[in-house]
Amino acid sequence: MSKSESLDKGDWGSTDIQSQDSQNNPELENIIQQISQLRDSIDNVDMAVLALLAERFKYTTRVGLLKARAGFAPADYHREDYQIQRLQRLSKDVGLDPEIAEMYREFVVAEAKKRHKRIKESGEDPGVLDIFS
Amino acid sequence: MSKSESLDKGDWGSTDIQSQDSQNNPELENIIQQISQLRDSIDNVDMAVLALLAERFKYTTRVGLLKARAGFAPADYHREDYQIQRLQRLSKDVGLDPEIAEMYREFVVAEAKKRHKRIKESGEDPGVLDIFS
Repeated sequence: MSKSESLDKGDWGSTDIQSQDSQNNPELENIIQQISQLRDSIDNVDMAVLALLAERFKYTTRVGLLKARAGFAPADYHREDYQIQRLQRLSKDVGLDPEIAEMYREFVVAEAKKRHKRIKESGEDPGVLDIFS
Repeated sequence: MSKSESLDKGDWGSTDIQSQDSQNNPELENIIQQISQLRDSIDNVDMAVLALLAERFKYTTRVGLLKARAGFAPADYHREDYQIQRLQRLSKDVGLDPEIAEMYREFVVAEAKKRHKRIKESGEDPGVLDIFS
């Protein structure tokens, strides 16, 4: 399908696919249906990831409390090295760019730091928030 | 357990928990065991998330290719708004900070942009890389 046949609004514009009129254009209709199905799968993946992240933060909070009880420092660079190496290895197993795995690790660490800041700002005792676990 | 009884190396230092000697200190030994079990669960969560991210990027790549075929713009702000609202709602359902849900969304978008840049640098046709989907 050439660009002139489509409803393209420009390479740097935006196309609201949901509102596309594909009547009398079976190929376009087919593409829109495929995109819609893929988006449903993407939405399911996102739901699963959110649920897993919620569990992850419960675990890291518990680790943080245990470390505080034992008087351990929040950081554990041995553990951090282990996690970096493991995520690199696993990313190859699942066919994911290793840089994405490292960005994921940095994302969850950044999350914990952000939560730490918010707890502090709310005036509550931030305790030991575990960013390495 | 007071700080002086522990093997704390300072609030801003690092404690290598794996190498802690907890002999003759049952409470410390118990804490180290609990942390070890929680870390196993955190590692399992990370493995599941990586696998889901690998699937997600397969889906978004397919959406990008379909959009290119139809001549649709990469961006779809209607879809983006829908995703933002949905993730906010779901984060409340699973007990996750809504800010974390939004950071996750920004993370996966940043990922796609990063991949786009790398494909471009490698000299291959980046095509339409879908960062919204």
